[in-house]
Amino acid sequence: MLYHVRMDVRLPADLDPGAREEIVAREKEYSRRLQRAGKWPQLWRIAGEYANFSILDVADHDELHAVLSGLPLFPYMDIQVTPLAAHPSKVTG
Amino acid sequence: MLYHVRMDVRLPADLDPGAREEIVAREKEYSRRLQRAGKWPQLWRIAGEYANFSILDVADHDELHAVLSGLPLFPYMDIQVTPLAAHPSKVTG
Amino acid sequence: MLYHVRMDVRLPADLDPGAREEIVAREKEYSRRLQRAGKWPQLWRIAGEYANFSILDVADHDELHAVLSGLPLFPYMDIQVTPLAAHPSKVTG
Amino acid sequence: MLYHVRMDVRLPADLDPGAREEIVAREKEYSRRLQRAGKWPQLWRIAGEYANFSILDVADHDELHAVLSGLPLFPYMDIQVTPLAAHPSKVTG
Amino acid sequence: MLYHVRMDVRLPADLDPGAREEIVAREKEYSRRLQRAGKWPQLWRIAGEYANFSILDVADHDELHAVLSGLPLFPYMDIQVTPLAAHPSKVTG
Amino acid sequence: MLYHVRMDVRLPADLDPGAREEIVAREKEYSRRLQRAGKWPQLWRIAGEYANFSILDVADHDELHAVLSGLPLFPYMDIQVTPLAAHPSKVTG
Amino acid sequence: MLYHVRMDVRLPADLDPGAREEIVAREKEYSRRLQRAGKWPQLWRIAGEYANFSILDVADHDELHAVLSGLPLFPYMDIQVTPLAAHPSKVTG
Amino acid sequence: MLYHVRMDVRLPADLDPGAREEIVAREKEYSRRLQRAGKWPQLWRIAGEYANFSILDVADHDELHAVLSGLPLFPYMDIQVTPLAAHPSKVTG
Amino acid sequence: MLYHVRMDVRLPADLDPGAREEIVAREKEYSRRLQRAGKWPQLWRIAGEYANFSILDVADHDELHAVLSGLPLFPYMDIQVTPLAAHPSKVTG
Amino acid sequence: MLYHVRMDVRLPADLDPGAREEIVAREKEYSRRLQRAGKWPQLWRIAGEYANFSILDVADHDELHAVLSGLPLFPYMDIQVTPLAAHPSKVTG
Repeated sequence: MLYHVRMDVRLPADLDPGAREEIVAREKEYSRRLQRAGKWPQLWRIAGEYANFSILDVADHDELHAVLSGLPLFPYMDIQVTPLAAHPSKVTG
Repeated sequence: MLYHVRMDVRLPADLDPGAREEIVAREKEYSRRLQRAGKWPQLWRIAGEYANFSILDVADHDELHAVLSGLPLFPYMDIQVTPLAAHPSKVTG
Repeated sequence: MLYHVRMDVRLPADLDPGAREEIVAREKEYSRRLQRAGKWPQLWRIAGEYANFSILDVADHDELHAVLSGLPLFPYMDIQVTPLAAHPSKVTG
Repeated sequence: MLYHVRMDVRLPADLDPGAREEIVAREKEYSRRLQRAGKWPQLWRIAGEYANFSILDVADHDELHAVLSGLPLFPYMDIQVTPLAAHPSKVTG
Repeated sequence: MLYHVRMDVRLPADLDPGAREEIVAREKEYSRRLQRAGKWPQLWRIAGEYANFSILDVADHDELHAVLSGLPLFPYMDIQVTPLAAHPSKVTG
Repeated sequence: MLYHVRMDVRLPADLDPGAREEIVAREKEYSRRLQRAGKWPQLWRIAGEYANFSILDVADHDELHAVLSGLPLFPYMDIQVTPLAAHPSKVTG
Repeated sequence: MLYHVRMDVRLPADLDPGAREEIVAREKEYSRRLQRAGKWPQLWRIAGEYANFSILDVADHDELHAVLSGLPLFPYMDIQVTPLAAHPSKVTG
Repeated sequence: MLYHVRMDVRLPADLDPGAREEIVAREKEYSRRLQRAGKWPQLWRIAGEYANFSILDVADHDELHAVLSGLPLFPYMDIQVTPLAAHPSKVTG
Repeated sequence: MLYHVRMDVRLPADLDPGAREEIVAREKEYSRRLQRAGKWPQLWRIAGEYANFSILDVADHDELHAVLSGLPLFPYMDIQVTPLAAHPSKVTG
Repeated sequence: MLYHVRMDVRLPADLDPGAREEIVAREKEYSRRLQRAGKWPQLWRIAGEYANFSILDVADHDELHAVLSGLPLFPYMDIQVTPLAAHPSKVTG
């Protein structure tokens, strides 16, 4: 099932640079593992903001929450979830 | 170039049913032509709302505006555009 | 899967009383049929407003959209959907 | 009487991990005691957010306030209360 | 039980003057009957707006909804309800 | 003259418990003195929130500001003032 | 007593031009009478909008409401009232 | 003096096509006359919306209001004005 | 030229009392100097809030920005500027 | 391609003055380099606020994000991007 997710990151400006680098690296690795597993098929940077639009493809709401709350940056994020249905005008392959 | 677009449709409740059917059919055909041309690669219904999230892939801002303002439902839509950049965590190919 | 839904009804004040009565009756029948089928397990009136909070229990986002967009009052409603996950503090059975 | 409650938790990101664990454990115990007493019949996680929707069933506004302001996480929460009335379309037992 | 209620009236500007006068008169009579019954103990005009703050004193959420949805102006109102609890600093008689 | 006031208290979560207790006690005493003087005739807790609705009865805007800015919790409050006029439907005496 | 008032006028675009001219003329006359009486000491157009900021100087909230609700354009206005107190930094004559 | 202006056009969907064409043509001519006079140096379409960002260069607030309120589409517009000052980082000539 | 300005002061609650007193005193002196120079003709306290409405009368946008950004409390303020034009209903001298 | 950008700077009030001076100087140099390169053709201060409106002229969304996220003040900014299309009423040289 597909979910549209907007994530806004609010890292405190006075965060220790080493700690910042470390958490951002863990976030990247976490995201890539999910992308490779086919659970995070789309990921775009919102131009000019420390934020992204993502499409997640998971089994259900519980897996979605597990994936999102497991993000290393989760404590610093505002997250907004929108469930996506098929669109009647969509051209299919 | 990729653009994230949210479209909310506000058709007046007292619109003549025939007129409504006709404009919705034209919208569908317009959308499908752009999808087939590769300019509207993603289209999802927002569950529970007369609205969609779309990804458009066009040459520049002018082509984007031409595509959106040409939508048969454009006079009845609220549209919100967000330019998308590459995300550094994106797994490619 | 569980979805939390808020529905706000905006019937035009000048709607013909007969048409109003008829559509409200159809809405009631539609809702009751889904309740009996176990797909609409909770339904509360928001005190003082022409609005409700509902819990829907359907197979997926597509069925949710089908159920909601099929509401006789759908053209007159603002609808807001929130997917619900299990809460770790929930006492079970 | 039934109340719909949304609770958003805003724990400071720099909270000491031990203190965090301790307060979350107390919150869980407090919530379970109320659930077992029948005063907190529904509790759902809002998918992707550190937030919940709850239904509380208490005698009156005063008991509701006592229950909510007694939450160990209360100083870190934004809380929004909505009184629920019976819905005329509700199918009963 | 006490409820704080804000009511904003949005009468269409093109309403027939006779119809307007009639509905406003019925609203006044309805309100006075509830005031005399002790169910609407406070009623103030918000200065400069076609709106009021009210305190209602009724048995429960269901009676509150019955009272408010029975207002002749209900179809033209935006209503916001807030349940009131006792304040610990309140001086009692 | 009557003023409707909403006060939301935002005490920092890391405030020293002794300091917190002291300031809340002073607030209570301050409020009670004004209630006894007839200047603060109504005071309700907003159920579920660290906030209140109050009715103040003072000579003019200057006295209102003096009373509110003198609150011990004033530096930690968001305050919203609404002047109240007589309502034409109010039943008197 | 001084009140700061913002008035936004929303005249329907399809109002009959004669009716529009007539109501605007009455509004102007009404406003000038109050200005000459010293009750409306300041009146500015908000640049680029059909709106104004005004200072009204009246006896109390009831007179304020009488003045504002008597405006010929009142049914077409959004009005926001703010009571003004003396500022401690104000230089006096 | 420079002003930043955002204009959002809300033409009613049921406007007569001839009337629409005529008012849009008058708007275009009005705008071009001001551009040629050097009073409207910048004009951009907001991609995907019936709206523009403009820079106006006029003598003072009164001239700005005269220019904007004289727009043929003014009765159908939401307008937001922001005065612009010189920026200390601006590279000149 | 006249500008309407709203200033909201957000002094941190943990600011050193001496530092607070000093900056507030400098703000007062700065404001009075501009009032005596005729550049700040109106200044009102918003009742119940640490905020003011002001009218500034300066040569142009650049002088306005210089005056406002020079306020000792500027780093702690939210400021909102509205340019004021002459109102056609204003009674003059 | 042209982008309209609003940048709001939120420097913490307790930032070390030396650090503040240094980062603001770097921001200025960074901005000037881009202006000289023709990528930042317009830059205005929003009167009364620590904020600017800018026009950026870059190759695509990726270059825009690189430019904006490279701003020394980026961690302290709220940024809002709007893609600009040609306006049909624009007079061209």
